[in-house]
Amino acid sequence: MVVELISVGTEILLGNIVNTNAAYLAEKCAALGLSCYHQSVVGDNEERLTEAVEVACKRADVVILSGGLGPTQDDLTKEVVAKVFHKDLFMDKHSKERIERYFKSKKAEMTENNWKQAMMPEGAIIIDNENGTAPGLIIEENGTHIILLPGPPNELIPMFENSIRDYLNHMEPGIIYSQIVKICGISESKVETIVADLMEEQSNPTLAPYAKMGEIHLRVTAKAENEKEAKKLVKPLVKELKVRFGESVYSTEENTTLEKAVVDLLLANKLTVATVESCTGGLLAARLINVPGVSEVFKSGHITYSNKAKRKILGIKKSTLDKNGAVSEIVAKEMAKGASLVSKADVTVSVTGIAGPDGGTQEKPVGLVYIGCNVCGKTTVQENHFSGTRAQIRENTVAAALILMRKCILEYYSQITFGDKSEII
Amino acid sequence: MVVELISVGTEILLGNIVNTNAAYLAEKCAALGLSCYHQSVVGDNEERLTEAVEVACKRADVVILSGGLGPTQDDLTKEVVAKVFHKDLFMDKHSKERIERYFKSKKAEMTENNWKQAMMPEGAIIIDNENGTAPGLIIEENGTHIILLPGPPNELIPMFENSIRDYLNHMEPGIIYSQIVKICGISESKVETIVADLMEEQSNPTLAPYAKMGEIHLRVTAKAENEKEAKKLVKPLVKELKVRFGESVYSTEENTTLEKAVVDLLLANKLTVATVESCTGGLLAARLINVPGVSEVFKSGHITYSNKAKRKILGIKKSTLDKNGAVSEIVAKEMAKGASLVSKADVTVSVTGIAGPDGGTQEKPVGLVYIGCNVCGKTTVQENHFSGTRAQIRENTVAAALILMRKCILEYYSQITFGDKSEII
Repeated sequence: MVVELISVGTEILLGNIVNTNAAYLAEKCAALGLSCYHQSVVGDNEERLTEAVEVACKRADVVILSGGLGPTQDDLTKEVVAKVFHKDLFMDKHSKERIERYFKSKKAEMTENNWKQAMMPEGAIIIDNENGTAPGLIIEENGTHIILLPGPPNELIPMFENSIRDYLNHMEPGIIYSQIVKICGISESKVETIVADLMEEQSNPTLAPYAKMGEIHLRVTAKAENEKEAKKLVKPLVKELKVRFGESVYSTEENTTLEKAVVDLLLANKLTVATVESCTGGLLAARLINVPGVSEVFKSGHITYSNKAKRKILGIKKSTLDKNGAVSEIVAKEMAKGASLVSKADVTVSVTGIAGPDGGTQEKPVGLVYIGCNVCGKTTVQENHFSGTRAQIRENTVAAALILMRKCILEYYSQITFGDKSEII
Repeated sequence: MVVELISVGTEILLGNIVNTNAAYLAEKCAALGLSCYHQSVVGDNEERLTEAVEVACKRADVVILSGGLGPTQDDLTKEVVAKVFHKDLFMDKHSKERIERYFKSKKAEMTENNWKQAMMPEGAIIIDNENGTAPGLIIEENGTHIILLPGPPNELIPMFENSIRDYLNHMEPGIIYSQIVKICGISESKVETIVADLMEEQSNPTLAPYAKMGEIHLRVTAKAENEKEAKKLVKPLVKELKVRFGESVYSTEENTTLEKAVVDLLLANKLTVATVESCTGGLLAARLINVPGVSEVFKSGHITYSNKAKRKILGIKKSTLDKNGAVSEIVAKEMAKGASLVSKADVTVSVTGIAGPDGGTQEKPVGLVYIGCNVCGKTTVQENHFSGTRAQIRENTVAAALILMRKCILEYYSQITFGDKSEII
């Protein structure tokens, strides 16, 4: 089956936004075994949109359009598709009620143009939007499936996950099953070297690496008649990857993020945690707190961006700051220790660094970041050199802090349990 | 003049990478006054690439292809374009020497297929690649300009900046100028209603709205012979928008984010700030700290996710928490006040809410968030109802908190300074 993607929106044509929807949909469709040979972008223009839809319907079995379902006059994806297939639009009562409820729940005022979003082409399958007012819809016509999704990613993604994926999955016999192996603390090129032979000989299952901030995800995917057969194909390769990467594998679960792996490790060892951040300004705490259930382990977080706050909240001596500078190994160590005294948490992690764009010197350049981690009294400090923008340096720092926390906790327990940390990676 | 972008690469069709090149090129072309009506993505496939080039050359004056200039057999953009225009390829001595030098400087081994990158269609303008081995090229044929650029952004961007921009700039008289009007605290549909008549009558300048978390950006764009003329067209509409939206306009600067507008307001009024967060877990502080220069105003941030931390760090009474629950108007108020006592900051902002997915009740559903803001002793609490995932609720909360901070500071100063807030923007 062939799928074609059409993204609708002048803001993409003008380069005001990056087309992440196309990448998301392309990846999901590939995982479902659909072949994608064309993606295109057109603006909210009737003539050009009509042509794009007509051309795509000739080339593909499934055409997914995203964007242009908003309440304004500009938005005309639904209207154009209805016209191409000679369908009238009618007011869908169910969607109308949902839109009313949506505004009520938000205690927001509704304007006349919002009703436009409840107008639907006859015969369309209507997909409720859990995160906005524009419903999605599917039209089946002469064997072609035309799927319309709202443009905002926070509406498009849940709609795809909850409804469209299943719809597409049932279209083709056989299934695709995949499992992920999530690795942290090893560089992309090193991971590729370790799996080079497996990449070379892959066919079914396939093995595909994806690099993420501080992490590498290896996806093992098999095609088979049924799930049982597919799982049987996937299992030995996943096992082999676990052997090769050892403790660097932090999860093989789709929904387990690095922060969840760290929180799970804290929960499993009945450890509490506190954070103290300078240049990351709360991002590390925010990522930990993204994990539901973190309240059992998270004691407190402190953002001590200024030297004054470092002294006042953590009790770091002025002389230490003056002598070594705020971005130094000793200050990272003292911050982690100070947080431990203030919070009484078992694990404390500290961040101090230069995120830029200003503030760097030859000795201490932008990107220099010290991360401290205290586990039950034992403090480790890691020096890091990151590159990129202020935002990238901060995100890299958060990933590195999570990886260091995981490493320090594993090492601590390996020492008190086995007395030999060399077995642990 | 019309430009069309073709991105070549299977990795984009598979969703393995996001097409940032298209966004970059689109933005740059728009700034040069070129109109872009189509962008497309095709794989490294001769037939489909040929068709895409032929179609684009019929529709556009300038066709920019990116990707597919690599040394492997897969890469065939140059070969396809040469074939479409019936041109032979020949070995370009200058490019051959450059490629040799490049490998020498990197102390890397050269493989036989690297010579492929020095093969050029006859009559092409060759563009040196300062950051890789694939030269770019331009072919002019029957009034159409076909530009081929390498796919890696770190090669494509410098090549565009150093050579292609000037080439394009000389092609068309006249320029495009745009200004942005950034609005916060008003819903998208309400904004649309307010500007409906302006949208209706737009031609030059045009008016285009973009929705962002908690914000709407209105872009006013004019085409004219020179910058002065274009600015003259843009100015009255920007002025009109400022009148219609009043204090809801937080900036008309391209690079001013909402958090920067808030930090600027703090700096201008010599106010210091502290944050205290529950469900957002540091995200609010992190967004403020994303602004370079925030250190002058940011005193400290506290993450009091647990009730214990709320009591210990902020001194909130156990009875208050027991009676009202942590997610309540009174606790938000006490948190803001507590933070004010602890930090001695002039402005303190507090967040307490239920980000989900669990923890909601009928009375206090997921998405209920109270935001408190204390400005020099005057505390305001806002009740919010957000929907979406845990991450979305948290992001919406951060945007709402920034908007509330801005509003409270403006109100405070309008009352003490003028007694009439309508005069303040």
